[in-house]
Amino acid sequence: MSRYLTVAMGQLGPIQRADSRASVVARLCAMMREAKALGAQLIVYPELALTTFFPRWYIEDPQELHAFYETTMPNADTQPLFDLARELGIGFYLGYAELAQEADGLHQYNTSILVNQQAEIIAKYRKVHVPGHSEHEPWRRFQHLEKRYFESGPGFGVTEAFGGVMGMALCNDRRWAETYRVLALQRCEMVFIGYNTPVHNAPAPQHDDLSLFHNQLSLQAGAYQNGMWVVGVAKGGLEEGVDSIGGSCIVAPSGEVISRCITKDDEVQVARCDLDWCAIYKRTTFDFDLHRRPHAYGLITAKKGETLAADGTLWQAAVGH
Amino acid sequence: MSRYLTVAMGQLGPIQRADSRASVVARLCAMMREAKALGAQLIVYPELALTTFFPRWYIEDPQELHAFYETTMPNADTQPLFDLARELGIGFYLGYAELAQEADGLHQYNTSILVNQQAEIIAKYRKVHVPGHSEHEPWRRFQHLEKRYFESGPGFGVTEAFGGVMGMALCNDRRWAETYRVLALQRCEMVFIGYNTPVHNAPAPQHDDLSLFHNQLSLQAGAYQNGMWVVGVAKGGLEEGVDSIGGSCIVAPSGEVISRCITKDDEVQVARCDLDWCAIYKRTTFDFDLHRRPHAYGLITAKKGETLAADGTLWQAAVGH
Repeated sequence: MSRYLTVAMGQLGPIQRADSRASVVARLCAMMREAKALGAQLIVYPELALTTFFPRWYIEDPQELHAFYETTMPNADTQPLFDLARELGIGFYLGYAELAQEADGLHQYNTSILVNQQAEIIAKYRKVHVPGHSEHEPWRRFQHLEKRYFESGPGFGVTEAFGGVMGMALCNDRRWAETYRVLALQRCEMVFIGYNTPVHNAPAPQHDDLSLFHNQLSLQAGAYQNGMWVVGVAKGGLEEGVDSIGGSCIVAPSGEVISRCITKDDEVQVARCDLDWCAIYKRTTFDFDLHRRPHAYGLITAKKGETLAADGTLWQAAVGH
Repeated sequence: MSRYLTVAMGQLGPIQRADSRASVVARLCAMMREAKALGAQLIVYPELALTTFFPRWYIEDPQELHAFYETTMPNADTQPLFDLARELGIGFYLGYAELAQEADGLHQYNTSILVNQQAEIIAKYRKVHVPGHSEHEPWRRFQHLEKRYFESGPGFGVTEAFGGVMGMALCNDRRWAETYRVLALQRCEMVFIGYNTPVHNAPAPQHDDLSLFHNQLSLQAGAYQNGMWVVGVAKGGLEEGVDSIGGSCIVAPSGEVISRCITKDDEVQVARCDLDWCAIYKRTTFDFDLHRRPHAYGLITAKKGETLAADGTLWQAAVGH
């Protein structure tokens, strides 16, 4: 049996600060038409796909900061994207900064939505693994103030759509094995992950040459070890003086990259993905019911970091000799 | 600062059923001398390194089966290895089948030990992720009866030794992200993983061409995502008609393979590993205290497989729209 889903990556090149949302939405729409021409039922856009990556700046004025957020979705600027999606009968995943009016006040999230082929928002995800730092650190060549500008979301969920079980994550989530596992424990068959990843990481410049390798390694391991499709889509290129990696790719449940963007600009690539291929892994090597051993996993949820055991010693093996 | 540990891989070629333990120990000793000549402080041997990989056979007679297990360690057959280790001042990791007399009777484990440079056993590990099946399945070209022959061990621990924090795992453990994470949550800086991996996997022959890729992908992702050194060592080659992968390698905390065996025979390779290199990852991208989000990981310990939520529906995202 086969359940094919043709998925497009809608990788974005840079968005400068002066670029209007209307101009960005026009670029997204152009890629949506390309994706449709390639037979895609769904196009995946990056994280924070409507504006420049503003966490690179320390912004004190709330009004200036909030100009980068969306308070409603769709809104006047993004309505053309929803209209085109309905016209073409194509779904999409889109990342943006969300300013949410909740009972206890305003909240800021790094958010993505999943939109079906009738242009209805069917799921929303708020980034869990918010990276970076929360205070201004002037020694950095540029800031990474996501921890200042975004709260962590509550968790990872799945949605039955596009003929299978779909999940969402964002950027730094992809480096954490827990992301894929929590989704896979909900039978996720395909996860969409938009990202913005500067080549230069100020606290660990030793990693800079490995940025693309680390991106792909994380996406491939997450796919293989959970028997799921992984669609990672970048905003890449030189944005306001900061160079970001591209490397958008679609990874099969085998861990193999089967489609990849080769520029750091706006670029559309597609892959025909058989959702039934997941079972080849989920029902054999990674049959969780047969092979997982939660009795040995307690520390994963019991503690956050590498703190020592209560008696001040290391955690020791339960097995003596 | 640097804390160098020179580690050798002592990859084994095949061990046929008729080969005596004495002959195998002689091979292990020969590799230990090579490792010493290369400056190694420690040599890592494979899983079940004293006998052929007997789970490939359905063995009904307990006496015939138990001939593959060790009841004490060291014992008459392995004493020469301990003696040589003491003479050379070199530590080792060794995998073997363990028959343990416990209060409630006999227990069978797939075990590894860590031995220091004074030839003392300083830690023991019993394999957690026991793969394969527990009943005879005659349709297979060869059996994989680990689930019949071994109980699952209690968990993953670490040991302060060789100038750092060391961990152990075995074979199939390396495909499960939880293995590395539970070790890293105990500050593990280097994990030793012996393995036996047939090229052919009967339930999923579609994977056969990817066996080496999956091995390396798992080792690399585990290293990078936890900022730890990973030393994976195979028993490879054609053993009793079954071909197994080699591909032993040492992976840096960057995820880069820095040393690799190229044969499927007895082969020694070494790497000079800076344990302080772990901190470059553990204190930046993978600073667990700063960046992990256990509030979102509950399912990892709460459930074993992909069972549905209590109300029969999928687990849904906690975030509405």
